[in-house]
Amino acid sequence: MKSDLLSNIYNPADLRLLKEEQLTEVAQELRQFIIDVVSVKEGHLGASLGVIELTIALHYVFNTPDDLLVWDVGHQAYGHKILTERREIFHTNRQIDGISGFPKRSESIYDTFGVGHSSTSISAALGMAIASKLKGDSEKQHIAIIGDASIASGMAFEGLNHAGVTDANILVILNDNAIGIDPSVGALKQYLTAVKSGKNPRQNNMIKSLNFDYSGPIDGHDFPTLIKELNRLKKIKGPKFLHIVTTKGKGLQQAEENQVKYHAPGKFDALTGEIHLKNEENLPPKYQDVFGLTVLDLAKKNEKIIGITPAMPSGSSLKFMMDELPDRAFDVGIAEQHAVTLAAGMATQGMVVYCNIYSTFLQRAYDQVIHDVALQNLPVIFCLDRAGLVGEDGATHHGVFDIAYLRCIPNLIIHAPLNEIELQNILYTAQLGLDHPIAIRYPRGRGVISNWEVENFGHYKKIKIGEAECLKDGTEVAVLSTGTIGNNVIEALKECPNSNTIAHYNFSFIKPLDINSLNTIFSTFSTIITIEDGVKKGGFGSAILEFAASHNFKNTIKILGVPDEFIEHGTVTQLQQLYKVDVKSLINLFSNGSK
Amino acid sequence: MKSDLLSNIYNPADLRLLKEEQLTEVAQELRQFIIDVVSVKEGHLGASLGVIELTIALHYVFNTPDDLLVWDVGHQAYGHKILTERREIFHTNRQIDGISGFPKRSESIYDTFGVGHSSTSISAALGMAIASKLKGDSEKQHIAIIGDASIASGMAFEGLNHAGVTDANILVILNDNAIGIDPSVGALKQYLTAVKSGKNPRQNNMIKSLNFDYSGPIDGHDFPTLIKELNRLKKIKGPKFLHIVTTKGKGLQQAEENQVKYHAPGKFDALTGEIHLKNEENLPPKYQDVFGLTVLDLAKKNEKIIGITPAMPSGSSLKFMMDELPDRAFDVGIAEQHAVTLAAGMATQGMVVYCNIYSTFLQRAYDQVIHDVALQNLPVIFCLDRAGLVGEDGATHHGVFDIAYLRCIPNLIIHAPLNEIELQNILYTAQLGLDHPIAIRYPRGRGVISNWEVENFGHYKKIKIGEAECLKDGTEVAVLSTGTIGNNVIEALKECPNSNTIAHYNFSFIKPLDINSLNTIFSTFSTIITIEDGVKKGGFGSAILEFAASHNFKNTIKILGVPDEFIEHGTVTQLQQLYKVDVKSLINLFSNGSK
Repeated sequence: MKSDLLSNIYNPADLRLLKEEQLTEVAQELRQFIIDVVSVKEGHLGASLGVIELTIALHYVFNTPDDLLVWDVGHQAYGHKILTERREIFHTNRQIDGISGFPKRSESIYDTFGVGHSSTSISAALGMAIASKLKGDSEKQHIAIIGDASIASGMAFEGLNHAGVTDANILVILNDNAIGIDPSVGALKQYLTAVKSGKNPRQNNMIKSLNFDYSGPIDGHDFPTLIKELNRLKKIKGPKFLHIVTTKGKGLQQAEENQVKYHAPGKFDALTGEIHLKNEENLPPKYQDVFGLTVLDLAKKNEKIIGITPAMPSGSSLKFMMDELPDRAFDVGIAEQHAVTLAAGMATQGMVVYCNIYSTFLQRAYDQVIHDVALQNLPVIFCLDRAGLVGEDGATHHGVFDIAYLRCIPNLIIHAPLNEIELQNILYTAQLGLDHPIAIRYPRGRGVISNWEVENFGHYKKIKIGEAECLKDGTEVAVLSTGTIGNNVIEALKECPNSNTIAHYNFSFIKPLDINSLNTIFSTFSTIITIEDGVKKGGFGSAILEFAASHNFKNTIKILGVPDEFIEHGTVTQLQQLYKVDVKSLINLFSNGSK
Repeated sequence: MKSDLLSNIYNPADLRLLKEEQLTEVAQELRQFIIDVVSVKEGHLGASLGVIELTIALHYVFNTPDDLLVWDVGHQAYGHKILTERREIFHTNRQIDGISGFPKRSESIYDTFGVGHSSTSISAALGMAIASKLKGDSEKQHIAIIGDASIASGMAFEGLNHAGVTDANILVILNDNAIGIDPSVGALKQYLTAVKSGKNPRQNNMIKSLNFDYSGPIDGHDFPTLIKELNRLKKIKGPKFLHIVTTKGKGLQQAEENQVKYHAPGKFDALTGEIHLKNEENLPPKYQDVFGLTVLDLAKKNEKIIGITPAMPSGSSLKFMMDELPDRAFDVGIAEQHAVTLAAGMATQGMVVYCNIYSTFLQRAYDQVIHDVALQNLPVIFCLDRAGLVGEDGATHHGVFDIAYLRCIPNLIIHAPLNEIELQNILYTAQLGLDHPIAIRYPRGRGVISNWEVENFGHYKKIKIGEAECLKDGTEVAVLSTGTIGNNVIEALKECPNSNTIAHYNFSFIKPLDINSLNTIFSTFSTIITIEDGVKKGGFGSAILEFAASHNFKNTIKILGVPDEFIEHGTVTQLQQLYKVDVKSLINLFSNGSK
């Protein structure tokens, strides 16, 4: 299909020159444009397809960028990006030096608020609306577009609760498609389903209870209805709420039918929608599957085991346990705070709880980790998925802060396995009964052992808490690695001409540190190099510095890791090269600059 | 009044031997017991007085400790503590080595879940209830008692949203007294007020929308009604919600009439209720008032200034600005996540936002600081009240983690003023326009300058970002302090025989560090001592170690601060003695052990 209208739209001012009848064609072209690009370049597909009409209608009715749109999470903002001066660079989406996969203030004046984590949009838009009011601007519109999975998160409730008692010009649009990345859950979802089916009469309206001018539900794919309603709401002052119903993946049959898979399908055929299958035989397993299959296996043998995920059953692979042991594995929705304290409550009753949360999202439950778990010394097992650099999701999603923010918490054990076997063994060890909570951090993606399942499944080995391991002897320099980045060290040492001088230790336990080994290491080697897949400020390297200072060692210590800046998107390999922790950089360092 | 019934109640089993008609007398005695002790020993008064009848009724109807009570926040749990084997030690409340002011698992089997921060009770009780179900115990009761201020926090909503789709045996009791520490705010509060006044018909019931069996509102001071309703609910399976109405401070006229002041009134006359006024003339000001009065003064001159507090207008002294400039100062309720992102939204529109949050409560908004403020480099001004050791509130409230958890965040400036003048000057400097967000941490309580207001108010001085100050010269040892703990160093050096050898630097900027000064210091002094009112793991001392390592300095570095354990309650002075950062310990260290 030739793009006739879309190619003439540089920004929303051009869109607003069109007649309303032409918008359907724009929608068709925009949808196809997204499908064409994402099918080749990959990215988040379903969410953006679902809000094509809404995106066009918003930019058509409202005076963007003066009127302020805040997209919650931002998976759905591809249409918005394309209509706002980024059509020609949209093919660089999520690539290094390309545009971000999420709205981002530094990228465009139309991106009013950077997003990535959910449920921030109401608070942000309310802040903008109050600011406008204080500046005497009563015409400016402030619009938060939020999905039904995101609005169920506590933070969104806090925003609604405040907005309802203001007279700020805020419009909250609930994009209700009954799914986040995985299907939505919880009582609010049931309530919304009832509202949509007409089973819940309007007078029993939760949103109205919060003082909002509620309208809907309306069909979010119907332009005349959408535009009429947005025009009506534009003239109403104060907090307003519009409930629209959409279909995730709209316009691509497979994406509508398999919404979880087509959330971010990878490469696919733009015409047929068929996903290009990769040849994944003989590849090492994903750490996610190692987690999911191991916890399932352990849970079958230990009936005290419970699994919890806040809205990531597919991403974390807890789905394996949810499918086989549905009574003992819980998707609690986008509710990290609740997930952690729920786990703590269960632990008080003797349950062994694996609480799987992406490293970057555990930031949402930091207080609960301290106050509800660690302070009470409850042996909850935190599985921090997507720790370290995550790649294309970029700055909002890198799990690089966890070592630093967890290391200061008393009672907490912190472990970063070197590989799949160690991940499996620490998962096994954790359920044997620890005296403390533990955080196990592992990265996104595949491990290093291609025959993992065949050789190791079920042959668990108990790990001694706090013990480091010497992987390779040496004479002058000791490299102390924690986590899977240690595999880069292993590879580098294989190719390093002076590798006989360099020892390598795997410090999978960041806390407690192996003091005995450290005493030996500091007494043996003049130079210590630490390496971690996380920030250098306050991380594993700092822990080693603290050890050295308190034991009065004066060795030279060099710390490798993520510098003190926010890291943009790119492949993990590209980013490792940037921060000189890739294999080649390590070879150079070990060969030349390690003394 | 002689205590006849109460003195025979060792634990709830004794209570349950009484006839229902006798409970009114127990209530009277228990109320008087609390008033008598708290009037002399200090503590939280109003909340516990408000739930005397509820506390007795719960222990009378339910089979505690087998049935599990979870008190949200825990300010209201004095009656519970007294009825559960702690009457005779209740006079040690909040004192060092005495009982905690909050429920605490290690203290009693009746304290099923440690609290202190709000809104955790529903999640914790649900976790317990699900665990009971999995263990096949269908009789056990799990009861969360939560106030109307706490239930408005997002985390509570997350708990309700999950509970509503389970068949777990959980009873949520909403103790609705329309006040937290300060009066409740927000749309939910308005909704509850309407429900209580009969203006909101039952069919429009928000709680029912979340699938709960809702009953109420009922009078929470009326034993027959309470007991009948609790007995009825005991027999109902699944998630239940009871809305009771109580009066905070019930039974002490002044406490009922002035609920904010009598939340924690200090010493007062047990008979008349009159608060014992202390002679506070010539005392240095509270840091809170320095903040509140300075921000008000600045806001009068700079119309872009906005103040935000999540539910602590009195505690933070933002009330001064709220009273005089109500359009620009916001109490958003117990909603730290919302508070931070609201501030970020305002900052995108050019507003200068002072977001005042207690250090320990900023843990609740950690992700928002990273994702919504720092990543976008929005110049929000975080004022972290009650940083460092807070004293009698104990382990749940010490603000000792902030340096460690904030230091790893890129873009963020971290400042800890030495005294009132520096606090005032950094508050002034921040609104002149920073390129970055800033966190300013200062402690609970009084400063060190008794004539602060007279001499300094309004005479603001711009502080150069990132600059350390040499307070005292020396020859061998340099003490680097950050924040008000530096005053201990100043005092100690006055009394130290060898003080001429010891230099003292004030590093109020923890980030960015003053690299020039550090280069000079490390080149001049053989030994460096760092001291901070915060955890040693990952804190200011670690920052100095990181500097030394990256610049290849080999000086001896000794780090003083809070060790890697949770710190119990006690006076700040007692706790400083325990961790050897009080003046006397510093004199000893400087005199003997500093080399």
